[in-house]
Amino acid sequence: MSGIKIKPQTLKGFRDFLPETAIVRNTIIGKIKTVFEKYGYDPIETPAVEYAETLLGKYGNEANKLLYLFKDKGERNVGLRFDQTVPLARVVTQYPDIPKPFKRYQIQPVWRAENPQSGRYREFMQCDIDIIGSISPLADAEIIACSLNVTKELGLKTEMWINDRTIFDNLGLKKEEIIILDKLDKLGKESVIQELVQNGRKNAEQIFQKLQNSEPTPKLTEIFASLESQGLNKDQDFLFTPFLARGLEYYTSTIFELKVSNNYLLSIAGGGRYDNLIGLFIGTDTPAVGIAFGFDRLIDVLTQKNPTLVKKSITKVLITIFSKDFLSNSLKISSNLRTSGINTEIYLDLTAKLDKQLKYADKKGIPYVVIIGPDEVAKGTVQLKNLQTKEQKEIPENVIPDLIRNL
Amino acid sequence: MSGIKIKPQTLKGFRDFLPETAIVRNTIIGKIKTVFEKYGYDPIETPAVEYAETLLGKYGNEANKLLYLFKDKGERNVGLRFDQTVPLARVVTQYPDIPKPFKRYQIQPVWRAENPQSGRYREFMQCDIDIIGSISPLADAEIIACSLNVTKELGLKTEMWINDRTIFDNLGLKKEEIIILDKLDKLGKESVIQELVQNGRKNAEQIFQKLQNSEPTPKLTEIFASLESQGLNKDQDFLFTPFLARGLEYYTSTIFELKVSNNYLLSIAGGGRYDNLIGLFIGTDTPAVGIAFGFDRLIDVLTQKNPTLVKKSITKVLITIFSKDFLSNSLKISSNLRTSGINTEIYLDLTAKLDKQLKYADKKGIPYVVIIGPDEVAKGTVQLKNLQTKEQKEIPENVIPDLIRNL
Repeated sequence: MSGIKIKPQTLKGFRDFLPETAIVRNTIIGKIKTVFEKYGYDPIETPAVEYAETLLGKYGNEANKLLYLFKDKGERNVGLRFDQTVPLARVVTQYPDIPKPFKRYQIQPVWRAENPQSGRYREFMQCDIDIIGSISPLADAEIIACSLNVTKELGLKTEMWINDRTIFDNLGLKKEEIIILDKLDKLGKESVIQELVQNGRKNAEQIFQKLQNSEPTPKLTEIFASLESQGLNKDQDFLFTPFLARGLEYYTSTIFELKVSNNYLLSIAGGGRYDNLIGLFIGTDTPAVGIAFGFDRLIDVLTQKNPTLVKKSITKVLITIFSKDFLSNSLKISSNLRTSGINTEIYLDLTAKLDKQLKYADKKGIPYVVIIGPDEVAKGTVQLKNLQTKEQKEIPENVIPDLIRNL
Repeated sequence: MSGIKIKPQTLKGFRDFLPETAIVRNTIIGKIKTVFEKYGYDPIETPAVEYAETLLGKYGNEANKLLYLFKDKGERNVGLRFDQTVPLARVVTQYPDIPKPFKRYQIQPVWRAENPQSGRYREFMQCDIDIIGSISPLADAEIIACSLNVTKELGLKTEMWINDRTIFDNLGLKKEEIIILDKLDKLGKESVIQELVQNGRKNAEQIFQKLQNSEPTPKLTEIFASLESQGLNKDQDFLFTPFLARGLEYYTSTIFELKVSNNYLLSIAGGGRYDNLIGLFIGTDTPAVGIAFGFDRLIDVLTQKNPTLVKKSITKVLITIFSKDFLSNSLKISSNLRTSGINTEIYLDLTAKLDKQLKYADKKGIPYVVIIGPDEVAKGTVQLKNLQTKEQKEIPENVIPDLIRNL
């Protein structure tokens, strides 16, 4: 096979996750799943590849350029999933017997041919929960409460900004005007009013005031009451934010965005009610509400806040090998530690000097090393070395599992 | 959005995993990961999309028809990952600073444009462990021991069939002859010898006997000794099987296949040593050994053996709603149960009769239901109903979390 030599390279806009990034991602996904499941959401998975028709139905030709479309071997027009909402809409239509309301979570990658120069990735993970088949404001409230609980479990203080799009409708606002108003926290009041005027709105100041003074809709009032029953506090855990608009056109009333407290420009999740989307498939509308966590941003915020989350290895201990004669001793200790549930690596090269083995553990980020040679075997002990403190002590072999487990 | 109506359909050869299949998959993946980590393997993830050049390097044009190739938006020739070994080879070459030996696990979907009529899927999960950068037979032994431990933890009796390809080389066997010999357990001795003769081998009977009487190579002897040191038994947990060949051309010496005991035609994992593959990228060869579990087959075997693994929902209890007046009571109990770590769903429709709520829990596979109405609220109790036994009893509200957790 020599002589072919391929240039090893990840495609621009795509990422490898080596242990240092993959471990923390796994940990966070595990915690998110636990909260989703506590709220009664069950997992589903859908294939990466869908009919192009399915993917294009929602976004139309505008999104065409962001979709990875290609031909299947049977020459069918297909593409990679762009989000998890369209596959969900397809699923609930394809399997009408699923009991409703259907509460599912889905944590899978999605693909978008974004401009990689902009720092966006072309493959990224989404974490979604949705409730299909309920018009009840309790459903909206539950999505919000569950999301707040996710960040609470992750040790991140957040608040949910909540609005109802029908407020815009009642004020007779146009689509482009709503998009301008949505920029309030980025641009400030003056610039927003100026843009509204430039866009042809004569009573911009008045409209701005009206929106600012608007009251939560009856539906929002019901959602807020339910959140308070669950121990969440208005203006602290959740806020009524009449300027919040969110881009996606398919939302029909409630919209919400989860903001990192004290950093309002940072949204880590967004969602709302989309009662018409499933109608694309089924012909008749089906109520739905849900939220999607932007997993990359969540990981960034959490690891910046708590750098100890990042680990180079999950392995807790390296068992060194003294020589071929003592290999079976090292193998037995490894087996015992694993039986005790401790992540244990045994050094694999019989000829390596101890120093090389210790350096390997250090470079790999394994915190403890067990050394076992002729003296230790004779006494039934091992040397346990802490690579961070460099401390080393001799311990009876049989207490090693309990000791390491408690370190 | 009305009037567009898209036909909701999964592409042939692709699958949706609804809760009933997704839950058991998640459970099994969790157990597999735990064992991989216990043996000191760290996770990595690679993107679904790779340069076509990378994917084609290993398999050449033969596999072209099974690859999903398409154009990236920058008009680069790309494709979907076909296995996890080629991305691993790319990764270890792209990041030369990864400490060696590099022990990683990877559990991600792969895509192959197989003929869906044959019952094969076009997207399926693989679970791989590999050790890169060690020529030691201890590495081969560890891959084997870890794999046997995976199935042990899953409650499945298996045995590892082991061979060394250099035995074929030493007998001067040709590639096509090896493929014929590999069919022994499917065809039987007579047919295999007949095929060898048809293929031009005059001393077929003699070659067959020679192979049957062949001894393990020194390398295999070392692997077997290491396995025995770890408490595994020859001819029980692992066997020397001189007829085992395995299809993939890139294996260089050790090859192995994990068979379900008492059902030798069923392989659930396969692997071996491939010391030349990484040379495709790096120019110089890098030793490597690993195994891939066929996740679909593993799930099939496990769920056939133990149907109780299959659950329609992870949710343990449904909290019903009596009326709007008692909603906050139901919400509070839900919060308490979740805080106690119990997966809890609250019924979301305020107007539904109790009977409808019970039917929903039953259809969804939720085992317990909590009923709370005016009488219970007055007494500080709830009704707990077991949907399987239909048994219902009144219990003080404050003992509910402990009670359900222990059910």
